Amino acid sequence: MLGKSQAKYIQSLGQKKVRDQEGVFIAEGPKIVAEFLSSSKTRILQLYALPDWIRANHKDCNGVELVEINEGELEKISQLATPNKVLAVIKKFEALSEIQTKGKISLVLETIQDPGNFGTLIRIADWFGIEQIICSNDSADLYNPKVVQSTMGSIARVNLFYTDLADWLQEQKDVFIYAAALKGQNVTAMKKINEGLIVIGNESKGISSSVFDLVDVRITIPGKGNAESLNAAVAAGIILSHIV
Amino acid sequence: MLGKSQAKYIQSLGQKKVRDQEGVFIAEGPKIVAEFLSSSKTRILQLYALPDWIRANHKDCNGVELVEINEGELEKISQLATPNKVLAVIKKFEALSEIQTKGKISLVLETIQDPGNFGTLIRIADWFGIEQIICSNDSADLYNPKVVQSTMGSIARVNLFYTDLADWLQEQKDVFIYAAALKGQNVTAMKKINEGLIVIGNESKGISSSVFDLVDVRITIPGKGNAESLNAAVAAGIILSHIV
Repeated sequence: MLGKSQAKYIQSLGQKKVRDQEGVFIAEGPKIVAEFLSSSKTRILQLYALPDWIRANHKDCNGVELVEINEGELEKISQLATPNKVLAVIKKFEALSEIQTKGKISLVLETIQDPGNFGTLIRIADWFGIEQIICSNDSADLYNPKVVQSTMGSIARVNLFYTDLADWLQEQKDVFIYAAALKGQNVTAMKKINEGLIVIGNESKGISSSVFDLVDVRITIPGKGNAESLNAAVAAGIILSHIV
Repeated sequence: MLGKSQAKYIQSLGQKKVRDQEGVFIAEGPKIVAEFLSSSKTRILQLYALPDWIRANHKDCNGVELVEINEGELEKISQLATPNKVLAVIKKFEALSEIQTKGKISLVLETIQDPGNFGTLIRIADWFGIEQIICSNDSADLYNPKVVQSTMGSIARVNLFYTDLADWLQEQKDVFIYAAALKGQNVTAMKKINEGLIVIGNESKGISSSVFDLVDVRITIPGKGNAESLNAAVAAGIILSHIV
């Protein structure tokens, strides 16, 4: 049974302001909830689930507050068009104090504001084994329900930091900074790297000039057609598949 | 000035049924309208535009019915969150009677239903110079306003056909059929091709077994991480960047 005030509370977590105040966010569906149940990055505070999900999964929920609800109640609290059996209220990740960039590849996102694109980029990073993403402060909110869902569980594995990007990049003197550009090295002819920062810019405006000035290696994805640009996530996927 | 019945008519073109009946669709914004004004694929029937757009572009609108409207009227008929100066009512493309597959690369989409993904795939095809896409009948509608907008103008250059995919692929005995699969040739080690059908499957279900049975060459995108799958458009972009 779901109390009225509980329902209201969960609904209010759709707003960034409330998520920030409470230090929690929500994730939905058996797949992503399973990722968080087995993740060491954070912990689930409450689970709201249908009886059949609870029957199948209660053994994996040790210690988590488990509330059995019916489909009508799930519909009320779900942010999805098609609610999917279980909703978790999860504690936000601990902010790491230091970002390590030596000896590994990091993805750097500037002003990616579309939640779907942002989530897809997290998923791509995870696919290629990239464990950390550094974002400009004006990027989408990691805890936005649309971002959480579109990562398809990768959010539980990839670390993400918000920072003043131009300032931060200026301090990264030990590692190369790579970025997609119209005139640069052909990505299909590039050698693999195992260290570096790969910058992906805003969907329509690209990379800002203050960040672009700091780029060491410009990368071009050759195209034959007339399309002006590729979607940011697609460009990232292509670059990573060639150089990682 | 925009008449009430005109406004209602344009709003109704958000529905597939009405678009099919009328044989028209809408596209919005200076960039995509400019693509259609210079395209030989179809023609614009009416343009609804703000005074400043008309002043700058009326010379390129030869023969097209041009209606000057104000911002409030544009807001009423626009399908965009942020209306963008001009809306065009456009005649649907002529259906070509025959699809040629020899000597070229075609993209084949099975059950891509998300309009944003569908549009992004059209844009990717255009980027890599692929001029035709064959889709299963249950794919998104090419003329859905969200699809039109997310192609960013590529819709004016790429030809798209709907068909019963398994039946049609069975008839394509002269060209190789490629598809992404978990166990296949490593995409980063593949040779370039200049002929073939590249199949991209549904976002969550992948390629159906009846289509998968017809695939000649299975392609794998190697990943290091734990993400289960890549977004369909990202996978398509990666495959095309390696083999086209």
